[in-house]
Amino acid sequence: MLFSSITKFIRSKAYSRLWNLTKKVHAADIAAVMARLFPNERITLFQVIYSHDVEKAADVLAELEPDIAADLLIKAQLSPREMVEIFRHIDSDDLVSILDHLPEDVSEKVRSLMAPKRSEEVRELLAYGEETAGHIMSTDFYVLHQDTTVSDAITAIQLSREVESGFYLYVVDDEGKLVGVVSLKQLILNPPSTKLKDIMNPHVISATVDMDQEEVARMVSAYNLVAIPVVDHEGKLKGVITVDDIIDIIEEEAAENLLKMAGLEEVDRITTPPVKSIKRRLPWLYVNLITAAIVASVISLFKGTIQKYALIAAFMPITGLVGNAGIQSIAVMVRELALGELTWENARKALFKEIAVAMGNALGLGIVVSILGYLTTGKPVIGLILFLVLVGDMFIAAVAGTLIPIIWKKIGLDPAFGPGTFLTMLTDAVGYLLLFGLATLLIGHLM
Amino acid sequence: MLFSSITKFIRSKAYSRLWNLTKKVHAADIAAVMARLFPNERITLFQVIYSHDVEKAADVLAELEPDIAADLLIKAQLSPREMVEIFRHIDSDDLVSILDHLPEDVSEKVRSLMAPKRSEEVRELLAYGEETAGHIMSTDFYVLHQDTTVSDAITAIQLSREVESGFYLYVVDDEGKLVGVVSLKQLILNPPSTKLKDIMNPHVISATVDMDQEEVARMVSAYNLVAIPVVDHEGKLKGVITVDDIIDIIEEEAAENLLKMAGLEEVDRITTPPVKSIKRRLPWLYVNLITAAIVASVISLFKGTIQKYALIAAFMPITGLVGNAGIQSIAVMVRELALGELTWENARKALFKEIAVAMGNALGLGIVVSILGYLTTGKPVIGLILFLVLVGDMFIAAVAGTLIPIIWKKIGLDPAFGPGTFLTMLTDAVGYLLLFGLATLLIGHLM
Repeated sequence: MLFSSITKFIRSKAYSRLWNLTKKVHAADIAAVMARLFPNERITLFQVIYSHDVEKAADVLAELEPDIAADLLIKAQLSPREMVEIFRHIDSDDLVSILDHLPEDVSEKVRSLMAPKRSEEVRELLAYGEETAGHIMSTDFYVLHQDTTVSDAITAIQLSREVESGFYLYVVDDEGKLVGVVSLKQLILNPPSTKLKDIMNPHVISATVDMDQEEVARMVSAYNLVAIPVVDHEGKLKGVITVDDIIDIIEEEAAENLLKMAGLEEVDRITTPPVKSIKRRLPWLYVNLITAAIVASVISLFKGTIQKYALIAAFMPITGLVGNAGIQSIAVMVRELALGELTWENARKALFKEIAVAMGNALGLGIVVSILGYLTTGKPVIGLILFLVLVGDMFIAAVAGTLIPIIWKKIGLDPAFGPGTFLTMLTDAVGYLLLFGLATLLIGHLM
Repeated sequence: MLFSSITKFIRSKAYSRLWNLTKKVHAADIAAVMARLFPNERITLFQVIYSHDVEKAADVLAELEPDIAADLLIKAQLSPREMVEIFRHIDSDDLVSILDHLPEDVSEKVRSLMAPKRSEEVRELLAYGEETAGHIMSTDFYVLHQDTTVSDAITAIQLSREVESGFYLYVVDDEGKLVGVVSLKQLILNPPSTKLKDIMNPHVISATVDMDQEEVARMVSAYNLVAIPVVDHEGKLKGVITVDDIIDIIEEEAAENLLKMAGLEEVDRITTPPVKSIKRRLPWLYVNLITAAIVASVISLFKGTIQKYALIAAFMPITGLVGNAGIQSIAVMVRELALGELTWENARKALFKEIAVAMGNALGLGIVVSILGYLTTGKPVIGLILFLVLVGDMFIAAVAGTLIPIIWKKIGLDPAFGPGTFLTMLTDAVGYLLLFGLATLLIGHLM
């Protein structure tokens, strides 16, 4: 409803009505609508909001996917100075992800125009590798010395500005090392003269600046945290990552895995321009072309058999079935690898399990397929051939479906991207070898 | 390291060393190890913990996936009375998800043995449909009347026991209707005599009891919340869902989507017994068998052409390529549908975009494939046929890849489960029709 009203106002150029509508709507909802708009409409909406209220425009930018936000700033032709003005209203962690997606020269220009303190803060975050805890952490948090009293802590919070991760107060020693955490509830529940070190929880779970963001997400998820402090290698507190950013990471990773399983390494959207989408999808299709050519060469080995007994070609789709069974194995392995529940150590057990499942499925399918093969051709030998193809090829599918993702991960590749294609190449090639090979051997019984 | 120590102690039956190790470890870490253990080892570990410390055993159960936890309780042969004793230490929301996975008779027996108040609370949660906000909410939260003063609120919190969602205090009117929310920080920052209604945020984002859990997750994610109150249809506050449960829902949904895309409707793990896995995977393979049979019947129409010109069969893997391009479209649509960014209204734009991308890819692939076809056979007409097959079949792949997931969703099916198989059936069938059909028409030029 919001979406249709907004598009209607944009198309009819009813900009003041557009602003009257959007000014009352939560920035997250505007961002959700923007994500569904096509680029030119998105720019119009942004410009309308920006011309009325810079802070609202900033809120919307912070809620957008950072690549969309950066693209919007460029397409809306904001000058670096205007960007700096908007960025004043954006938290450092969100700002860093937008800067990541701006062209290098624009990003540099913008940073040179920022207040020195802000610029330095952003420079530090940008210096940590992308997708590390240091890169995505916020530098906005409550931190106090361990000798502070509860009443001084309350005063400090009263005097400080609103911070993003305001449920906890982090406690440090003389050297700035993280030594504990105090919840705001504990401040309420304890006498004013108590020192923080006497009420803090010293067993604080923290991440290190160079930790991979997905590892941090796993920690927050496993320990049910709402924020996790980030320390450097000396244990000094450098920042905090809040759970809303963790949710973004988990959702991003999930979306990436889904797209990767389908052979898309980069996020592709319905609003991505076609030429960009082609650039993202075509390379993978060329890899598929190579595997298809390998399978084609296997088929062409059996030209003679096909010529003599053309109907055997009708049974070729059986390998697709086996390929899908192998993809099931891969999906299970990819999930277990992502959860950290499958390692090189228990791979052997996983392999035996998958082989057992494959043999069960081969039996279940094989009986039906052989009967169908016999009934449609009238030749029992066809039933036998199909049964053997299924058993042999399902065995290969189980072994490849288990081991390819594990090996992929072991050599540092992403198990969600690639294994499916190599598996189906293998199951097609082995399947056709078995189908046509057995047919060649038994050709006398077929004719 | 923890995993290998634990398995070593289990295998060598060193149970007191096992307890000494596990008693110092966070329940979440023990649960993570348990998820990787095979059922008999998992039972042993659980029994060792349970025999020493019921509360720790309860913490571990609450951290496990609920189906694994329920299975463990049954396999460890705990009596309903023993289960009730453990459940006393588990929050009502976690308890409900475990009860969901216990056999109906055991669940009933357990509930009949619980304290009446607890039993009633659990009965109410269970009464809401599975996967709704009401079913998964916690009934542990701070709630106070709007006329309460800050100092009385602080006293109330001091007197109440620790609650799971303790960052906010929910404010209700005389009828128990949710009217606002106060953060604990606001209690600190405001004078003791202030009434909650004067400091509360009245724009509180809430879920309703019958809202789908994934819808709730989307709200928490979009608005960056750490907890969301749940109200009934009269606006009365019934419970709270905390962000850690939301993360579980998001992760579960992501895992399910990944598995569904691969044709697995239920979660399957490497520790799932093979017979259960076969039951989960085989039905889908039978569906695949039907689609394979349809494709086989298309091929068998062209027996004559294949007999006359067997080499054409070698080009059959080309349809696999097209199928993969279609799967790319499906993955993009499934993601956009999940994010709510693709609807029936903008489906037309998505379709045009996908067709444009498909034609670009068909051109990019077609040139290479026709040259390869010409070079390997020496016949230009083969190049022409392959080019036409690619263009025609890629068009079908784009249309099917866009529309099948949208139609699937429109008629209430899950767009992640099924469309892939129907798409590849279509691209195979159309691809073979085009390949063999054109070959039949042009057979004179081929021989």
